Amino acid sequence: MSTATQTVSDLCAAAKRASRVLATLGADVKNRALEGIADALVQRTAEILEANGRDLQAGREAGLSPALLDRLALDPRRIEAIADGARRIAALPDPVGEVIDGSRLPNGLDVRKVRVPLGVVAVVYEARPNVTIDAAALCLKSGNAIVLRGSRSAAHSNAVLAAIAAEAATAAGLPAGALALIGGGDREELRELATQSGTVDLIIPRGGEGLKAALKGVATVPVIFAASGNCHVYVDRSADLAMAQDIVINAKVQRPGVCNAAETLLVHRDVAPAFLPRALHALHDAGVTLHADDRARAIVSDLPLRVAVAEDWDTEYLALEMAVAVVDDVDAAISHVNRHGSGHSEAIVTSDTAAARAFELEVDAACVYVNASTRFTDGGEFGMGAEIGNSTQKVHVRGPIGLRELCTFKYLVEGAGHIRA
Amino acid sequence: MSTATQTVSDLCAAAKRASRVLATLGADVKNRALEGIADALVQRTAEILEANGRDLQAGREAGLSPALLDRLALDPRRIEAIADGARRIAALPDPVGEVIDGSRLPNGLDVRKVRVPLGVVAVVYEARPNVTIDAAALCLKSGNAIVLRGSRSAAHSNAVLAAIAAEAATAAGLPAGALALIGGGDREELRELATQSGTVDLIIPRGGEGLKAALKGVATVPVIFAASGNCHVYVDRSADLAMAQDIVINAKVQRPGVCNAAETLLVHRDVAPAFLPRALHALHDAGVTLHADDRARAIVSDLPLRVAVAEDWDTEYLALEMAVAVVDDVDAAISHVNRHGSGHSEAIVTSDTAAARAFELEVDAACVYVNASTRFTDGGEFGMGAEIGNSTQKVHVRGPIGLRELCTFKYLVEGAGHIRA
Repeated sequence: MSTATQTVSDLCAAAKRASRVLATLGADVKNRALEGIADALVQRTAEILEANGRDLQAGREAGLSPALLDRLALDPRRIEAIADGARRIAALPDPVGEVIDGSRLPNGLDVRKVRVPLGVVAVVYEARPNVTIDAAALCLKSGNAIVLRGSRSAAHSNAVLAAIAAEAATAAGLPAGALALIGGGDREELRELATQSGTVDLIIPRGGEGLKAALKGVATVPVIFAASGNCHVYVDRSADLAMAQDIVINAKVQRPGVCNAAETLLVHRDVAPAFLPRALHALHDAGVTLHADDRARAIVSDLPLRVAVAEDWDTEYLALEMAVAVVDDVDAAISHVNRHGSGHSEAIVTSDTAAARAFELEVDAACVYVNASTRFTDGGEFGMGAEIGNSTQKVHVRGPIGLRELCTFKYLVEGAGHIRA
Repeated sequence: MSTATQTVSDLCAAAKRASRVLATLGADVKNRALEGIADALVQRTAEILEANGRDLQAGREAGLSPALLDRLALDPRRIEAIADGARRIAALPDPVGEVIDGSRLPNGLDVRKVRVPLGVVAVVYEARPNVTIDAAALCLKSGNAIVLRGSRSAAHSNAVLAAIAAEAATAAGLPAGALALIGGGDREELRELATQSGTVDLIIPRGGEGLKAALKGVATVPVIFAASGNCHVYVDRSADLAMAQDIVINAKVQRPGVCNAAETLLVHRDVAPAFLPRALHALHDAGVTLHADDRARAIVSDLPLRVAVAEDWDTEYLALEMAVAVVDDVDAAISHVNRHGSGHSEAIVTSDTAAARAFELEVDAACVYVNASTRFTDGGEFGMGAEIGNSTQKVHVRGPIGLRELCTFKYLVEGAGHIRA
């Protein structure tokens, strides 16, 4: 574990050394480490709660909102859940060593493209202390060393969680330095972490737009943003309207504070008169504040609809709030989505194969849904077991970042004295 | 094509709009465009040579070296070769639409992970004007719009090549704006290109360390460095020494100016007395200047060996020059490679399966060779048809950057009204 006297660059260099060993370990050692971490967390619950209590106390004194305090709070049940998460990751297949592709070249060389760890992954995150263990378990299982950098508000909790995990990992045979936590809080430290070219192979920020902006300007190591989602549901002319209503309600209401929740409803003008009154009443009854364009407000006059302004189309509310617009056709819906969406998850409800195909082909997003809720974008739902976040970038990984996505590959080429002519 | 009055940001925005259309085109349209480009280049050879003549004239006046002037020079045969390159790319399978993975989830949702274009790819390159067409053909075939930024020294040649290609592409049905060239030369323009977040999806610099450094500091869009190679050949204790000598000579001498050529020879101490005299004499006879460590110089005293200094181990000579060291064992060789290598191509010559396995497992590089020359790292050799360079990064792509590597993917998820519980 990190100590106060080690610099960011020392910790990253130690992580790099550890990563050389981690890359060679079989799944059995890594799985034992993850199970050891889970056991230790449960055994040392009192210690974790004590540290968490100090963070909560400081948070209350600093006037954190009840929502933020709740995200920060741990209890024995939550610690059990964190430990279970690590055990579930241990039970997943090891991505390292998977042969992705391979062939014998015409000259007889045997080429295999084999999945290998990235090396050192840095994860920068806010508030929730469970990320400390989730991210560590995913990185260690995929054979990577991890450097964590949490927020100041969870500093005590994160420090104890990381110390327990690092101890248990070392006890199970992982190399020292494989898991490190850096202080947290100051921007200079973040800049230092994001410029460790040669030791840090990837940095993943999990957090809001402020964190993203802070990193964009300074990072010299590759960054994958586990970013925000401005997601849409488009109800096509041919949609089954009962299905459409269920999907819209689910996408907006089931868990509004997450990145795969929908933020904007788009409705084809031909079905707007039939669909909007019932759908907006249902959304309103579920507590959703609605920001509607002129055409939608002209159809639904018996609800307190706000006037949608330009910013509404670009806003990720992350709350019981939704923008609503009427569009001329599927092409207009696609244009709206590509202009305002963040490339996360986009849904069309339709019974028309041509509309479905156009939406799938032309919408530029990580996940494109036909007749299903945007809420399914999730490593667990997709059968990847777990995720460290969802990427809205296009390089390396799009959508859920699971174990395979924390890997790179190398080509292994075997010959019998082959030289190039 | 670009005109002098369009800004970098205008060109990138137009490329983004074009990329929406490109992503929906079938292979037939894209292939016709590439064949049209090839035909137009040959037909308009005189025009190209006239522009190239102006660059050569300016280059001679500026005192460019004969080697640089040769890289810059075009002639009818070279133009034919560039056109043939575009035709060969047209003949490759279309990567767009390939289903990479897919399954039916337990809840009945059908998920397909489908290869799609990245969108807008920017390629920044030096000297050789053929890159204008090679890069354009690879990007257009993979459904991407391309923004090219060549060097000032090839400005006239690049402008004519890009104009001819853009015209032919549009004539064949590709959207306007799909291929653009920006002026070239000034660093401010490069900074502008590298910060077009939201329009440029990837920037690929093809060039030396200066270009890399210039981009690292400023880029906010994802960058894949088609970078340098500090490659090693390690001759193990158990190596077939005749095979080892052939591989070393091939890796160093066959084409010394390229990134997959070897720069350092490492030899196990037990075979150094038998191997080094013959190998170093053969290298010397081939015109190679040798920088040897103390142990190697103690063995070979009848050659004018230079004293290897610390920088030699980190130098990519790109010339008939090689560093030579004696190491204690395969572990020492692996450590040396991981400390000094650039993660490009690394070879072991051995007849010992344990040594081969350790080298493959522990060497952190894009391509690891057993009993073969490093010179095979190449998109063409690997059966990928063509490449835009070789990546030594670990995210997104490692090794040859071919058509598939110029793509991302999206998840297409189809349901029947599925909502999340």
